[in-house]
Amino acid sequence: MKKAFPLNKVYSLLESGPVIMVSTAWKNKQNVMTMSWHSMIDFNPPLVGCVISDQSLTFKMIKASKECVINIPTKELAGKAIGCGNVSGTKVDKFASFKLTPVKGSAVKAPLVKECYASLECKLHDARLASKYNLFIFRVLKAWVDPAKKHPATFHHRGGPSFFIAGKSVKLGKKL
Amino acid sequence: MKKAFPLNKVYSLLESGPVIMVSTAWKNKQNVMTMSWHSMIDFNPPLVGCVISDQSLTFKMIKASKECVINIPTKELAGKAIGCGNVSGTKVDKFASFKLTPVKGSAVKAPLVKECYASLECKLHDARLASKYNLFIFRVLKAWVDPAKKHPATFHHRGGPSFFIAGKSVKLGKKL
Repeated sequence: MKKAFPLNKVYSLLESGPVIMVSTAWKNKQNVMTMSWHSMIDFNPPLVGCVISDQSLTFKMIKASKECVINIPTKELAGKAIGCGNVSGTKVDKFASFKLTPVKGSAVKAPLVKECYASLECKLHDARLASKYNLFIFRVLKAWVDPAKKHPATFHHRGGPSFFIAGKSVKLGKKL
Repeated sequence: MKKAFPLNKVYSLLESGPVIMVSTAWKNKQNVMTMSWHSMIDFNPPLVGCVISDQSLTFKMIKASKECVINIPTKELAGKAIGCGNVSGTKVDKFASFKLTPVKGSAVKAPLVKECYASLECKLHDARLASKYNLFIFRVLKAWVDPAKKHPATFHHRGGPSFFIAGKSVKLGKKL
């Protein structure tokens, strides 16, 4: 069960580099894709940069709707997440095919993915580098996190079929 | 011992979100800082986006020299890396203070950090978003990796003093 999460802590969800699932909506269509090329850009309001292929349906849906939801899966969802990364939403309804549950958000029309432990409702903030680098900068308007997941087993891509699961948690210093 | 690494595989070193150490050189000064806000931007030639505070010496040295080296530490180096993230190069010589070894690169004047398992020699490629978001896009010209580190124990920031070490490696699918 996800609860509202403070916006000034959103960086702690993303900066470790988890695989994310980006969901979008436009007119009567919903879609979700899986990717790893993202970075925090600013703390508060939280800005997130995402590189999304201009060959993808998601790119077109973001261009049209100017919003998305960034969902963060844990290892239990890895199979479905990778399935969503290997097929285009132009061919299948990925929510139906992979039995993912779209949930209505509060700030955007794009759906949250219920099965992910965290979801960030985002508005497109700056598309200046979208045509050259496929880079969108989003502003997080509302964040939801399952408070039961204190050490979420996010998974992280190392290229090709190789991933690792987030391992041992350590306290290392006051900040970075 | 690091060996040359193919440029079209550089994404596999960075997209999992490791803490990185960015080294710079300008005139007679060398510096190194630690950060986590980075993303792959393109595969080949590899482009990497890095958000670097405009309050830092590194920001000024990149502006002046138009280059850097992105070094990737593993857990053995965590203490030194975090030390480098919590003090400014305007106050101390971090290579000397933290007993890090600067090594001459082949494509840029910024030094490689010998103790890191991978080092990417980079030229500044696009600074269009540097003034608004502190976002630099670098092009990797030359990559070096220790081939003995097949499953590098990179470490990943979860905010404040919380980190995790890269855990269990898994093969999950053909691609993402």
